[in-house]
Amino acid sequence: MDLLEALYTTRAMRRVKTDPISKEIQAKILDAAIRAPTGGNAQGWRFMLVDDPGVKGKLGPLYRGSLEQLWTTIYAPRAAEAEANPDKPESIEFRKMARSANHLAEHFENYPLLLFAFVQFDPTGASIFPAVWSAMLAARAEGIGSALTTVFMLKAKEMLEILGVPEDGGWQFSCCVTLGYPTGRWGIAPRRPANEVAYRNQWGEPVGLEIPEPLWSAD
Amino acid sequence: MDLLEALYTTRAMRRVKTDPISKEIQAKILDAAIRAPTGGNAQGWRFMLVDDPGVKGKLGPLYRGSLEQLWTTIYAPRAAEAEANPDKPESIEFRKMARSANHLAEHFENYPLLLFAFVQFDPTGASIFPAVWSAMLAARAEGIGSALTTVFMLKAKEMLEILGVPEDGGWQFSCCVTLGYPTGRWGIAPRRPANEVAYRNQWGEPVGLEIPEPLWSAD
Repeated sequence: MDLLEALYTTRAMRRVKTDPISKEIQAKILDAAIRAPTGGNAQGWRFMLVDDPGVKGKLGPLYRGSLEQLWTTIYAPRAAEAEANPDKPESIEFRKMARSANHLAEHFENYPLLLFAFVQFDPTGASIFPAVWSAMLAARAEGIGSALTTVFMLKAKEMLEILGVPEDGGWQFSCCVTLGYPTGRWGIAPRRPANEVAYRNQWGEPVGLEIPEPLWSAD
Repeated sequence: MDLLEALYTTRAMRRVKTDPISKEIQAKILDAAIRAPTGGNAQGWRFMLVDDPGVKGKLGPLYRGSLEQLWTTIYAPRAAEAEANPDKPESIEFRKMARSANHLAEHFENYPLLLFAFVQFDPTGASIFPAVWSAMLAARAEGIGSALTTVFMLKAKEMLEILGVPEDGGWQFSCCVTLGYPTGRWGIAPRRPANEVAYRNQWGEPVGLEIPEPLWSAD
């Protein structure tokens, strides 16, 4: 697969089939992940694949509890705004995202494969999220959709216990990635144009580039 | 460029030429970056391109001071170990990394382009490092080498002041990426094999995959 096609069309894909993902593809996903850079090339990471129904069965209710907590705390202002002004583009986008996130929670046990990432000595995330994103891109090349979620952070202790992560190893939960063959189609997700979120040399100074439309398209 | 070639060969490339990077390529790099996913699609990010010699001239000494601090604090145990046991593979690898990191610091002002990333409301880094990594992969497709560094974190206040980042906006520094056309060659960086850093269903349980060699090669 072409790099740009992967970068432009790997969007959160939460609606997937239950078909299993072969071990050959699992190996490709993990092997791509570990090629990513880490600070000082320390590779202070661990990955965990979860496909056991028993483990997923314990994680599912915990995930739904975490997401419920998110709506009433961190996302509460955006949810209130979406309710107060339902016709604003941001509100429509928020409700769409919320429906998709709730779909993931409701079907958590049905994802054929979950990829958990853990990291040591990485307060910024700089040494784990390139690897996670590489895994998601490599999955995309195999026609597999993914969605990255950090929502378990709100119930980290219980989640680490279910997965048997030792308390004294200094391992932090980074994220969980759901994986599966999509039911829908790939496409370019809407984004605020780069020139609106980029500066040059000083904060607030125009970047001097006009990019109103995506520079890559499938056509 | 093929996705896997990019994922496998985009390694920290700190030895680069001073040749400028065209605005056309700069646009491609930023446009690829903003396609990455963010939590709740919030896109709470800002990017800054720095190519002004005056600004780089202020950042360079600050960067060298930050790195000096890193060697004597966070990296002190590894540096001591490398000195005590100079022939161990880890020690050789550490000295190589240290030489390369010092090269970056000594030549900071010579990089033709720097990309800074800032983020709001992202304690984990999950909503900024996929974008940063996409930028580095898109640069790779244009033959441009990059290196991600978070070392400014140790002098964040002074760095934010140089770049004019407002104190009250809630913007956190994520990282600085140096960019430039490499003097050396692309290649696959050494990594601990995936099956040694991955588990299945429970911490410590074998992942059940054997991946002794990279699954992609240039041949």
